[in-house]
Amino acid sequence: MISNKMKTLVANSSVIRAMFEEGKRLAKIHGEENVFDFSLGNPNVEPPEHIKASILKILNEESPNLVHGYMNNSGYEDVRSKIAEFINKKHGLDLSYESIVMTCGAAGGLNILLKVLLNPGEEVIVFAPFFGEYNNYVNNFDGKLVTVPPDIDTFEPNIEELKKKITSKTKAVIINSPNNPTGVVYSEKAIKELAKTLSEKEEELGISIYLISDEPYREIVYDGVEVPYILKYYKNAFIGYSYSKSLSLPGERIGYIVANPKMDDFEDIMAALNVANRILGFVNAPSLFQRVIADCLDAEVDVNIYKRNRDLLYNHLIEIGFKCIKPEGAFYLFPRTPIEDDKKFCEDAKQFNLLLVPGSTFGCPGHIRLSYCISYEKIKNSLPAFSKLAKLYNMK
Amino acid sequence: MISNKMKTLVANSSVIRAMFEEGKRLAKIHGEENVFDFSLGNPNVEPPEHIKASILKILNEESPNLVHGYMNNSGYEDVRSKIAEFINKKHGLDLSYESIVMTCGAAGGLNILLKVLLNPGEEVIVFAPFFGEYNNYVNNFDGKLVTVPPDIDTFEPNIEELKKKITSKTKAVIINSPNNPTGVVYSEKAIKELAKTLSEKEEELGISIYLISDEPYREIVYDGVEVPYILKYYKNAFIGYSYSKSLSLPGERIGYIVANPKMDDFEDIMAALNVANRILGFVNAPSLFQRVIADCLDAEVDVNIYKRNRDLLYNHLIEIGFKCIKPEGAFYLFPRTPIEDDKKFCEDAKQFNLLLVPGSTFGCPGHIRLSYCISYEKIKNSLPAFSKLAKLYNMK
Repeated sequence: MISNKMKTLVANSSVIRAMFEEGKRLAKIHGEENVFDFSLGNPNVEPPEHIKASILKILNEESPNLVHGYMNNSGYEDVRSKIAEFINKKHGLDLSYESIVMTCGAAGGLNILLKVLLNPGEEVIVFAPFFGEYNNYVNNFDGKLVTVPPDIDTFEPNIEELKKKITSKTKAVIINSPNNPTGVVYSEKAIKELAKTLSEKEEELGISIYLISDEPYREIVYDGVEVPYILKYYKNAFIGYSYSKSLSLPGERIGYIVANPKMDDFEDIMAALNVANRILGFVNAPSLFQRVIADCLDAEVDVNIYKRNRDLLYNHLIEIGFKCIKPEGAFYLFPRTPIEDDKKFCEDAKQFNLLLVPGSTFGCPGHIRLSYCISYEKIKNSLPAFSKLAKLYNMK
Repeated sequence: MISNKMKTLVANSSVIRAMFEEGKRLAKIHGEENVFDFSLGNPNVEPPEHIKASILKILNEESPNLVHGYMNNSGYEDVRSKIAEFINKKHGLDLSYESIVMTCGAAGGLNILLKVLLNPGEEVIVFAPFFGEYNNYVNNFDGKLVTVPPDIDTFEPNIEELKKKITSKTKAVIINSPNNPTGVVYSEKAIKELAKTLSEKEEELGISIYLISDEPYREIVYDGVEVPYILKYYKNAFIGYSYSKSLSLPGERIGYIVANPKMDDFEDIMAALNVANRILGFVNAPSLFQRVIADCLDAEVDVNIYKRNRDLLYNHLIEIGFKCIKPEGAFYLFPRTPIEDDKKFCEDAKQFNLLLVPGSTFGCPGHIRLSYCISYEKIKNSLPAFSKLAKLYNMK
């Protein structure tokens, strides 16, 4: 009795469930400590201490009907103002609260954006490899996802291929940097080139193309790398931000959209985002955590914990013969598989109790994704299993 | 550049915004204390003290990565189990956690339900007067809202009219008791008759008709009235519950769906709800508040505060000549207007600084909705304004 659309979606999701079940099955046989699950993107680093202190302060000082009550569907004005000021200071911009909509995480943000922008059949372009949920989000509004093939040597956006994909039906382009699954941070050069290409195509086709940067990993970067702020490079730009990773609060569903006030139809779009937040059933981003993050704008998780994990796993993989770009952000590695069939490779990995995600899930076969947001100990204990896997394929 | 669907939705929403702006305009001229805003459903009664104590306890005792982390998209299993046990004890049922999906409030719950059930063009029946958002929620999934005309003498569901509206395209019926906007609690007799009618029509047409009871006001009842629990009366039944009103936490977006385990395709539906929660961008109900409500299942706001408000306002309206059913639940009154044109009546009310919502917003013209979830003092001060309004219309 479920809808036809949902039937397909449930079938697709069963792959993830199957992996989860497989992990439980292996844990029963070999013991949980001997199963190495690199499949989940659930942050293991603790939220900063300041989060708890903030919650206590807010509960003690503010009226409960304010803290837990309804507000404007776009969020508390004071919270939005503080976020705008924070962005202005950090990136030299001049935004007001009117550019900010508080959202139920980045996922909620992307959904209200696509609700506002998409007519059925309009196209949204993504660069492979990409977070698989984009497909579902675009599908929610009967849009069409168009994939740009990857540049597997750099995993930067493939601009030449992008040019071929833009049509008069193109409504938006989604980028994700630091990237899930590659960990790559798009360079300023790449962003400039992307912005130039989109502007030229807008002119040529007489349309607006909205660039949406999905940035839950913005603060998870290593080695002093800078993540370009796309509002500085492109007029029709949105950023979807989330505190899920930067503050390790993924369950709390708190994030925001920031829109470039210079964009086409700015006022209409902001009014529509407000309405979309309401009618899609989000109503508003969770109220207490809106107030908490406004009090914790400077806080960050200890990124060094992830960096140590990255170095340990990356160095070992390179040593045993994997080819892999050294990621500068997020908490994923995306090495090539020694055979083209990444699904078979993941199957084989299970004999060593390694749970990996095939790159084809991200539109990029011939690779695997490893989430290293697990304990250092666990990664250390998993290294012999990777060595055995490499040996199975005579990798070195 | 916003989508065509959104253009209409934004235009419709501008009515609400206009009223809000009107309130601000009047407050500037006459002072805020002299403007009587009966238009908003934002609870003014404080959350129970136990909420704060629970938050502190959870933050002190549980691991932050558990409290703020991802869990199954349907919610924490222990939370769902506790809710199931609570329902079982209260209503003599035998539910397990598998019947419960934690949702971002009742609005989030209704949206994932409709995503799961509706194919484009399928019909959802509601009884006028009804909460206007149902129209938007059904529209999100290209369903068609079918309205059963009201029985304005009782505001109970109009079963004879319902029979005429059910077709082979009917997928669901949404009821809302205690009702927004009438405050009426559907009687057991009405629920039994409704269940019988739906079962007969299912048989006759060879289809499943899902009954969805939207129950954010379940605990807001007066004079010892009982709200029938529809899982006891109908097989294909869901309840959408929310803690927004029962615990005065509307901003926190916390609620759940409970499904009758005997319903058609139960397992498919529960798997699909899990996926729908994820792909619509809710991902999961806010994590901390899932744990908080599991610790506060017995807590309730002080309903007597609302009851006092109801009595004060209701008695005055009756005294000055309004016709109105005495509501047994929620925090709304829904009196008849002395003229058919409820919008004109609301316009006229503004000269006395009264902000009222026309019944036509709820599919029931010739009425107005008054939200009495404001302070007792404010209501008391507003009574002369209502008297003037009644006098304008020579109501007595």
